[in-house]
Amino acid sequence: MIVLLSGGVGGAKLVHGFSLIPHCPSTAIVNTADDFVHCGLHVCPDLDSVMYAVAGLSDPQRGWGVCDESWQALDMLKRYAGPDWFQLGDRDLGTHLMRTHALSQGQTLTQATQTLCQRLNIQTQVLPMSDDPVRTQIRTPQGWMDFQVYFVKHRCQPAVSDIRFRGIVHAAPSANVLAAIATASLIVLCPSNPLVSLDPILQLPGMPHALKRSNAAVVAVSPLIMGRAIKGPTVEMLVGLGIAPSPVAIASRYSEVLDGFVLDTRDAVLAPQVQTLGVRVLTTNTLMESTQDKQQLAQTILETWT
Amino acid sequence: MIVLLSGGVGGAKLVHGFSLIPHCPSTAIVNTADDFVHCGLHVCPDLDSVMYAVAGLSDPQRGWGVCDESWQALDMLKRYAGPDWFQLGDRDLGTHLMRTHALSQGQTLTQATQTLCQRLNIQTQVLPMSDDPVRTQIRTPQGWMDFQVYFVKHRCQPAVSDIRFRGIVHAAPSANVLAAIATASLIVLCPSNPLVSLDPILQLPGMPHALKRSNAAVVAVSPLIMGRAIKGPTVEMLVGLGIAPSPVAIASRYSEVLDGFVLDTRDAVLAPQVQTLGVRVLTTNTLMESTQDKQQLAQTILETWT
Repeated sequence: MIVLLSGGVGGAKLVHGFSLIPHCPSTAIVNTADDFVHCGLHVCPDLDSVMYAVAGLSDPQRGWGVCDESWQALDMLKRYAGPDWFQLGDRDLGTHLMRTHALSQGQTLTQATQTLCQRLNIQTQVLPMSDDPVRTQIRTPQGWMDFQVYFVKHRCQPAVSDIRFRGIVHAAPSANVLAAIATASLIVLCPSNPLVSLDPILQLPGMPHALKRSNAAVVAVSPLIMGRAIKGPTVEMLVGLGIAPSPVAIASRYSEVLDGFVLDTRDAVLAPQVQTLGVRVLTTNTLMESTQDKQQLAQTILETWT
Repeated sequence: MIVLLSGGVGGAKLVHGFSLIPHCPSTAIVNTADDFVHCGLHVCPDLDSVMYAVAGLSDPQRGWGVCDESWQALDMLKRYAGPDWFQLGDRDLGTHLMRTHALSQGQTLTQATQTLCQRLNIQTQVLPMSDDPVRTQIRTPQGWMDFQVYFVKHRCQPAVSDIRFRGIVHAAPSANVLAAIATASLIVLCPSNPLVSLDPILQLPGMPHALKRSNAAVVAVSPLIMGRAIKGPTVEMLVGLGIAPSPVAIASRYSEVLDGFVLDTRDAVLAPQVQTLGVRVLTTNTLMESTQDKQQLAQTILETWT
């Protein structure tokens, strides 16, 4: 069983890649610290990105949300001068309605997610990192902001000086998450934002211990290529927190749990520096543009570490 | 100021009719006992029917909901095998999202409704009967059912043996409602279901007193023509509760507050019976098929009682 720790878009691509490998059951443990309640609906951006990617429902042009989307509800919300900063597509709304309904019936987020995935015929096991609420907040010159407000409403414009995960002290990885890690043959940290996508998962109480107890190799895929992120404010956030925007700094950040690190070919020159951390380095193409790219990266990781 | 007590579709038509009369400010006091929370969203079917009717947004074919509607969210909800028994259109969802957002920000339902109406450029003042939750429940052979479950999910099929309004004892008409009644020159009970649309409004604590104190004539429009309702289970409910499905029985039910009663021309033969209740009777066309019908009925009522 391959276990993938993932945030949204970038991580979702690699989860999709693994899902395409025959006879290779995988579990995605997905960040939920970006979740929020919007207009009464429980929205889980990272879970949805992973789910839509694996179900083949992602919109290829936009890079987020559902394909064949329409925007009638949002148009009405705009007409009401409502909170239209978060792009709620009509099809996407069906997901939020179903999840909110399931939660209102007393289901856990894990159960609600399982229901959604079953109905989309997804073979990958998609798990929220926790059934407890954790909420990422970003410190900016305007003060602390909820993640989606920073990320979507303010389009990542404010300078980031600190990040916190409200509620994480009282949150726990779900039983399914702990079971997946305990039985994993390989654990992959997907190319997601380390600060706001992977850290909330890795900092859940009990998670460092679970990773250390696992016999599986732990491998991280660099979210940076040539000093840049494919999408999102990873570089800006790293710099804001005084961390070098380099794969080496990211490998170093995780070195305590890390057995392997995947560098993009274009960053091959950095391999020796990562190796000094006692980490085995794979150098390959990590830019996942096509479906074939995604599957190829997954396959290469699999062949290197299992 | 004309005050109209209204439920959904039938009442909404007459509210629309009054809104078309120039220089005739009107206030609709609308039943909220059909409201419910569905998939996390606060849905107010009667308020929406009135609002859409007056804004010219009603769908003329379906007879409910918004024109130019699409059903992408509902299609996804069906795909998830979710609660698709309540028809949530995409445009309609925009209304529920905005209302739920406004309520989550601490607005009262009165304030939230005012915001929605302003943005739709509605001149008619549309008021929820109360800011307190009242919930209609229907007694059937399967036990007590929430109104929407009876009305939509079970398509009015179960036999009705009793009706109750949960929470009504602790609910109050809003200050705006009481002010509207106190300053009304004419109060019209619209041709809505008396048992589930008008009774919740009329049975609010303080409402009978407010109506008695008002100097305005109180006029009811029969919701029945030739022993049948235009739409909805009015007749079945009346029979289920042992009330004759006749305009005379309805006039009698309200006789304590009633000054006038509007009978359809096809029921002119019943006028003497209604008159014996001490109520002045207007006989005219009450079937509102066209916009002109609606305005004509409103105009005739206005000319008769002001």
